[in-house]
Amino acid sequence: MHVTWLSSVTAILQFICPDRPGLVSQLSGWIANHAGNIHHADHHIDAGAGLFLSRIEWELEGFALTRKLITPSVNNLVEGLGGKAHLYFSDEQPRVAIFVSKQNHCLLDLLWRYKSGELPMQIPLIISNHQDLEQICTNFGIPFKYIPIVPKKKSASEKEILSLLKEYKIELVVLAKYMQILSGDFLSKFGTVINIHHSFLPAFKGAQPYHRAWDRGVKLIGATAHYVTEDLDDGPIIEQTIAYVSHRDEVEDLIRKGRDTERIALARALRLYLRRQVIVYRGRTAIFA
Amino acid sequence: MHVTWLSSVTAILQFICPDRPGLVSQLSGWIANHAGNIHHADHHIDAGAGLFLSRIEWELEGFALTRKLITPSVNNLVEGLGGKAHLYFSDEQPRVAIFVSKQNHCLLDLLWRYKSGELPMQIPLIISNHQDLEQICTNFGIPFKYIPIVPKKKSASEKEILSLLKEYKIELVVLAKYMQILSGDFLSKFGTVINIHHSFLPAFKGAQPYHRAWDRGVKLIGATAHYVTEDLDDGPIIEQTIAYVSHRDEVEDLIRKGRDTERIALARALRLYLRRQVIVYRGRTAIFA
Amino acid sequence: MHVTWLSSVTAILQFICPDRPGLVSQLSGWIANHAGNIHHADHHIDAGAGLFLSRIEWELEGFALTRKLITPSVNNLVEGLGGKAHLYFSDEQPRVAIFVSKQNHCLLDLLWRYKSGELPMQIPLIISNHQDLEQICTNFGIPFKYIPIVPKKKSASEKEILSLLKEYKIELVVLAKYMQILSGDFLSKFGTVINIHHSFLPAFKGAQPYHRAWDRGVKLIGATAHYVTEDLDDGPIIEQTIAYVSHRDEVEDLIRKGRDTERIALARALRLYLRRQVIVYRGRTAIFA
Amino acid sequence: MHVTWLSSVTAILQFICPDRPGLVSQLSGWIANHAGNIHHADHHIDAGAGLFLSRIEWELEGFALTRKLITPSVNNLVEGLGGKAHLYFSDEQPRVAIFVSKQNHCLLDLLWRYKSGELPMQIPLIISNHQDLEQICTNFGIPFKYIPIVPKKKSASEKEILSLLKEYKIELVVLAKYMQILSGDFLSKFGTVINIHHSFLPAFKGAQPYHRAWDRGVKLIGATAHYVTEDLDDGPIIEQTIAYVSHRDEVEDLIRKGRDTERIALARALRLYLRRQVIVYRGRTAIFA
Repeated sequence: MHVTWLSSVTAILQFICPDRPGLVSQLSGWIANHAGNIHHADHHIDAGAGLFLSRIEWELEGFALTRKLITPSVNNLVEGLGGKAHLYFSDEQPRVAIFVSKQNHCLLDLLWRYKSGELPMQIPLIISNHQDLEQICTNFGIPFKYIPIVPKKKSASEKEILSLLKEYKIELVVLAKYMQILSGDFLSKFGTVINIHHSFLPAFKGAQPYHRAWDRGVKLIGATAHYVTEDLDDGPIIEQTIAYVSHRDEVEDLIRKGRDTERIALARALRLYLRRQVIVYRGRTAIFA
Repeated sequence: MHVTWLSSVTAILQFICPDRPGLVSQLSGWIANHAGNIHHADHHIDAGAGLFLSRIEWELEGFALTRKLITPSVNNLVEGLGGKAHLYFSDEQPRVAIFVSKQNHCLLDLLWRYKSGELPMQIPLIISNHQDLEQICTNFGIPFKYIPIVPKKKSASEKEILSLLKEYKIELVVLAKYMQILSGDFLSKFGTVINIHHSFLPAFKGAQPYHRAWDRGVKLIGATAHYVTEDLDDGPIIEQTIAYVSHRDEVEDLIRKGRDTERIALARALRLYLRRQVIVYRGRTAIFA
Repeated sequence: MHVTWLSSVTAILQFICPDRPGLVSQLSGWIANHAGNIHHADHHIDAGAGLFLSRIEWELEGFALTRKLITPSVNNLVEGLGGKAHLYFSDEQPRVAIFVSKQNHCLLDLLWRYKSGELPMQIPLIISNHQDLEQICTNFGIPFKYIPIVPKKKSASEKEILSLLKEYKIELVVLAKYMQILSGDFLSKFGTVINIHHSFLPAFKGAQPYHRAWDRGVKLIGATAHYVTEDLDDGPIIEQTIAYVSHRDEVEDLIRKGRDTERIALARALRLYLRRQVIVYRGRTAIFA
Repeated sequence: MHVTWLSSVTAILQFICPDRPGLVSQLSGWIANHAGNIHHADHHIDAGAGLFLSRIEWELEGFALTRKLITPSVNNLVEGLGGKAHLYFSDEQPRVAIFVSKQNHCLLDLLWRYKSGELPMQIPLIISNHQDLEQICTNFGIPFKYIPIVPKKKSASEKEILSLLKEYKIELVVLAKYMQILSGDFLSKFGTVINIHHSFLPAFKGAQPYHRAWDRGVKLIGATAHYVTEDLDDGPIIEQTIAYVSHRDEVEDLIRKGRDTERIALARALRLYLRRQVIVYRGRTAIFA
């Protein structure tokens, strides 16, 4: 018999500070002092940067502090350690907006995983610059907003989007084959965006990576799920997957094979995010999985 | 600049006990109380078994206890927690005996990795039931003992081997394509043995897995590095690797492709062992890598 | 510019006979004599069995024989060579019945790939022993037949199924997580059935492979798409995929990770079948991809 | 029983010409007309380029033409078809010179595979710009030439190397971690050079790819075996391999893991070359494996 203990509600602390002795003890001591039972604790030292990163997950049941009291107590602890922290509760599922254009493979894959329970999130909103995928969203009962992007009015469209993200209390935007570039201004106002790029970055940044991969005659193609930053395709990488190709594969075959790697890289990255297993720092990620 | 902090000497504690709140805090608190700087701390809860497993590694430099005093202090701690523990020091490299027969690919691979610094161990002894590989061992300056195994005198040969393992203070035996089955009696006297089996276990246990894989028409072959137990090929698995094959591959091609998967699975498993990243329990392994 | 020549209609010949000199020349000569332009020609010699296998695909446009005249001409050729052959036309898409039970991941994946053009087939019929997935099929506009299987009336149910397969002119049955065992009697009457088994066969034949994989402590799991024969899980293997797992993965994680490998193995195998790239012989497959 | 028919001597024809109907028939017809038994025949049409590529391998035993007469007959055939061809005999093993600098992992791997029969070649010569690996070569009984490269005298050193390649009748140069760039002048005089680059090209061309991969925070690293052209790291790709990495991996770990991918990519590419399975055209390769 395998116990499904993960179904119990947990608190999750992501913590980062300059490395020094005693940090694990201080973090776990705070939990023990409040009778917390740790489910998962993992730490990483980036020696080059002199940084200590930690992710600790513990049961709320039996914990001495109520949910409301945890936050000030954590803040107190973190301040004392001179670090930065995020606190999450496993039953407060992130509110995620998915952005799409015309291609449906990533969207359908995410919706299927969402329905099957693989992705612990809420999807209050799907936004697209095209109307092609509206029916799919309607079938799943998810509000679909059509916001076309025309070059001269891009700024207005982005404002409209930002307003929706605020209205729907969105925490994370997932670009599931959204074929528009978000402006630096947009990103400065809403910064938590995950994209799927159809190459193993940093190879083939930018447009038409499969065509360029074919032209180069590579023997493998890939996909990269990464945080979006103002520098195109240069954001912190969360997950990368690859597929082997041969001289028999035309560009269309690369596109077809690529869809599977894109779906899997994006789904894995999103799941890692949703379970609070990703810590971003200094342009890179630590994955506590 | 990337700091090679791993070159500093560390102590490594492997710990296992029934799960309950406070264990991480108690272990890390003990280290913090002695001014230890944790390099790596990782824990696992096997919820079905109700067990807590932990591996903690910390710097010896600056630690308040001398090496001699650590052991009784750890024993005291562990006893108080009702668990079992192993304590290691990173500069006390395990003494490993490699057993071989006629095939040289795993032996040469291990020796190359050993020379290149990938495998932190000592190799005081290589034992074989054939003389084919003696020259290789001599070239590397490693004592080679030829101990033939004949059916009627197997027991005497195993006694001779056990005597050598004792004499050379061997901690681990690695079967690098040793085509003999160690008896239950042998294993009861020397139990820490890692083997490489040329299939993805539990498929194709026993003899001639590549021939049987070909006959079955599989599309992938594999290799499994595992601890040896009296039940043939049923011991705890440390590492598994695979290679794709096609209908064009003859048995000889499976054998050729398989050599690469064998070399890599065995080398990875051995490195995990040597770095004290493997905890064996209940017929399985937890890998803290 | 990449020419999409595959969109032209082709004839595909699968051929098998005892190996001897001149076979490639005789097959390709027959095509050349009728002004055929070969798109793809691939051959394999199973030296142990003394067999020659071939797959040749050529353009119908410009071919000297009309579609009706090709068959007798091919029969004549094949008879002269003492072999067996199958002839297909790329625009005559196979009629496939999908069998399901309660799990939807393989079904949805196949339907999505079907809609996206990855799987050149017709799906006139979906059969299930449960009603859970009826809505999905209805949404896709595909007739859904609910045929429950109760132990004492299994024979009658299978007759009903056979009758439907005949009525709908089904060429291939795909078991997309159909949790029933087809009887030998059924298979003797309808033999072309592809199944997805959730392990890398021959490991973990039969029921609950993920639970048994967890119990065994394997470091990788897999999925196998294979032809169904009366010997359970012993039919010719078409495709196998794997996923890495760790001690942190519970049985539910193996099931979750396994769904992806199942979806991909089944989709690949089906695509190979539909493009007439699979030749089955002597309990195994040759894949001309 | 598995017949090792590959041990028989074969002729191998690599052929390339503009695509048109009848080519397979004409090539295989020529073989059949001389009573040849084809072991392997594979073709590829690059539709975008309008090119037909073919590799045919047939037994010499029983072939109507003696080895001396095959060449003029092939030339006649090829000229009539307006194509280009290369003819090889499987028992005439290529003469390969290996170039190395200080790192030994690729060299030792190639030498081991050579000794074990995986790589059907002769190695009459190893050249290095350092003396570090001389002993290894001497142990294997292979002539080692130390030709240091100093910036101002590079041209003279390359002349010396070219002279050696001529003297030793070298067909192929393998750069097994040779840390020098061959000049365009050198390559114009000796053009068949295979290199191993330690990244999945086109990512991280040039120097220190592992350091740059670490800085970029990638989740996978790779190696690329490719033909050398004057444009650095832009030559036709033969083989690519990858390894997964995590935030826990320091640069040294990337280098360590990378060694395995480098060894395997280079060994595979070399084996493909030696078996005449690689056709290079238009800056890319077709692999007939």
